[in-house]
Amino acid sequence: MRDGGGDHARRGAAAGVAPLDFFTVVDTQRALRRFRPEPVPDAAVRRILSAATRAPSARGAEPWFFVVVRETATRAAIATRYRGAWEAGERVTAATDADRDLRGRPHYARMMRAARELAADLAAAPVLIVCCLDHRQLGPIAGPDGTLLSPVAAYASILPAVQNLLLAARALGLGTTLTTLHKSFEHDVKALLDVPAAVEVVAIVPLGHPADRFGPTRRKPVAEVAFRERWGKPFVADGGGGA
Amino acid sequence: MRDGGGDHARRGAAAGVAPLDFFTVVDTQRALRRFRPEPVPDAAVRRILSAATRAPSARGAEPWFFVVVRETATRAAIATRYRGAWEAGERVTAATDADRDLRGRPHYARMMRAARELAADLAAAPVLIVCCLDHRQLGPIAGPDGTLLSPVAAYASILPAVQNLLLAARALGLGTTLTTLHKSFEHDVKALLDVPAAVEVVAIVPLGHPADRFGPTRRKPVAEVAFRERWGKPFVADGGGGA
Repeated sequence: MRDGGGDHARRGAAAGVAPLDFFTVVDTQRALRRFRPEPVPDAAVRRILSAATRAPSARGAEPWFFVVVRETATRAAIATRYRGAWEAGERVTAATDADRDLRGRPHYARMMRAARELAADLAAAPVLIVCCLDHRQLGPIAGPDGTLLSPVAAYASILPAVQNLLLAARALGLGTTLTTLHKSFEHDVKALLDVPAAVEVVAIVPLGHPADRFGPTRRKPVAEVAFRERWGKPFVADGGGGA
Repeated sequence: MRDGGGDHARRGAAAGVAPLDFFTVVDTQRALRRFRPEPVPDAAVRRILSAATRAPSARGAEPWFFVVVRETATRAAIATRYRGAWEAGERVTAATDADRDLRGRPHYARMMRAARELAADLAAAPVLIVCCLDHRQLGPIAGPDGTLLSPVAAYASILPAVQNLLLAARALGLGTTLTTLHKSFEHDVKALLDVPAAVEVVAIVPLGHPADRFGPTRRKPVAEVAFRERWGKPFVADGGGGA
């Protein structure tokens, strides 16, 4: 059932990377938060955004926009606020011990260190992709004033596109991580980028040639998170469904 | 930079489909809402769920669960309510002319017809994958009572997994569509499936061998949805960035 892969494969290869099969990409995509300084060509950004726009959206409305930020001053302005938001978040998390459920996990400390390093210098990423949701294109999902009547349906019209973006970057050998920390300074981001009032900034994705390697990623086994017919009834009888 | 694709490719092939390159999958994944009656093997469901769990999540918490529903009675119970929710939605949309922004698009009528056909008989899908978000695993993103303090960060911890699920199904030649219409009868779904109070049902994905063909999909060109540095400034200067 290999249908018309040739064109797409060549297009991937045009960006200088041999085409990877789908499961290799999905199984090895992970947050990569440290970047090498080399620039990312426009052609790669364009291919990644094209993949993003293949995602589904409610009513087929495609209510997404992407602002590609390369300018040093703009990245620095966002990075300063991002660092502030990170530090405020760390204080709240510490004060309420909000990560107590995760501290014991093997990779928690390493992940938090990497996230903190990124927060200290978000502008180290040569590109920031600012992912936006236009509330005016949500039809019955938003009220006349833009209020989300079904937040799930609204975010299901932008976050799948963001995931496509992360995967497409990985397919081209480029690192990313999905961040939403800007929500506490969204107003400033919108002012910096001239984003209209009715448009929400949903995610900021730093993009660049990664300093670290892709996966394979470690995750809970399928046996721990999948049920058959109803909650609590194992889907994987032998408990060995982690692959 | 082809790193270790062999194992993954073989795993894909084990489900009876030749491995597809990433961009073929992402460019041809589309909502397929009519299903042939053949059953979907557990191995394929497991591979799809494994791909889902590769997605990112806030704090790396992996706060997701998936209930795989095959039983006829359960699918019928969900389908009855789904049809009711669809009909109620159609009435609201008609009364408020909420789709006026889309009616003129070339594929709107066909898409709505297909969605209505699915709503008339959701149980025609041999499998429903009920995608859940555990509010107890959101740390500082949810309050002590489970209220979402940052809905974007919460849904960014489940909807990327749902998108991986849709893509993985397509990679195995299986059809899906992302639905959120159950939100108006979520309480009933949770009761049917014994889902705990603190867990939210975010999406229901019908899964099966498709009666129709995969893409390529039609989307707005990148030139229409991408900006450079700030809102309104074209990213694609020549306007030809649709690929």
